[in-house]
Amino acid sequence: MSPDEQAIRDVIATWLSASAAGDTSKVLSLIADDVVFLVAGRPPFGKKEFAASQDALRTHRIETTSDVREVIVDRDLGFARTHLTVTMTPIAGGQPLRRSGPTLSIFRRVAGGRWVLARDANLLTVDGPR
Amino acid sequence: MSPDEQAIRDVIATWLSASAAGDTSKVLSLIADDVVFLVAGRPPFGKKEFAASQDALRTHRIETTSDVREVIVDRDLGFARTHLTVTMTPIAGGQPLRRSGPTLSIFRRVAGGRWVLARDANLLTVDGPR
Repeated sequence: MSPDEQAIRDVIATWLSASAAGDTSKVLSLIADDVVFLVAGRPPFGKKEFAASQDALRTHRIETTSDVREVIVDRDLGFARTHLTVTMTPIAGGQPLRRSGPTLSIFRRVAGGRWVLARDANLLTVDGPR
Repeated sequence: MSPDEQAIRDVIATWLSASAAGDTSKVLSLIADDVVFLVAGRPPFGKKEFAASQDALRTHRIETTSDVREVIVDRDLGFARTHLTVTMTPIAGGQPLRRSGPTLSIFRRVAGGRWVLARDANLLTVDGPR
């Protein structure tokens, strides 16, 4: 595995652990300021909207597992494809909601050599009986 | 606009015109053999499954408009983000179905210098009343 591939896998792992810990500022440090998030059924959105959605999720316990299927890099651009499973359980009690599916994410190498998330397509759907 | 960006935009334009003309072999020539297509609600699939789905669509007239929002290239890797609108009308008659939404696609430069589609995330949803 190349150092760049390892670095991008590390960004994904840090993202998941910071997200699970509710450490929004750490998560935001992994994201380019001009990031674009794509999900089905709503217009593309940016870092500000993402940060707001992270705050809104504080009512839930979030457990995420990520199976990184591939990471490909060429110079300062790379992409990762994963299979993600996200379980959201209301802290106040209630049924957990589980979503799973693929993601396709673009990473960019920035000043200092570290990698940040630049574009993210999230194709998760709700699992099980609806 | 860089020649590479223009080349990727040309691939997208050729894709749409070949697709509208039902020229599946032309469409397939624009796709890497190891392509991975991602759509919500089903496992990732490859070129063979894509070709089969193209054949299955011969019962419909397909009209597609693509608004290319950006194309970014670094050396032999690039990506494009579009807003796509697809209208499928049964040739035998019946209501058209319109889907729209964003796509995120990875392109790779191959031998000879041309660009092919390598990964594709399609986040289209059905428009209007369901």
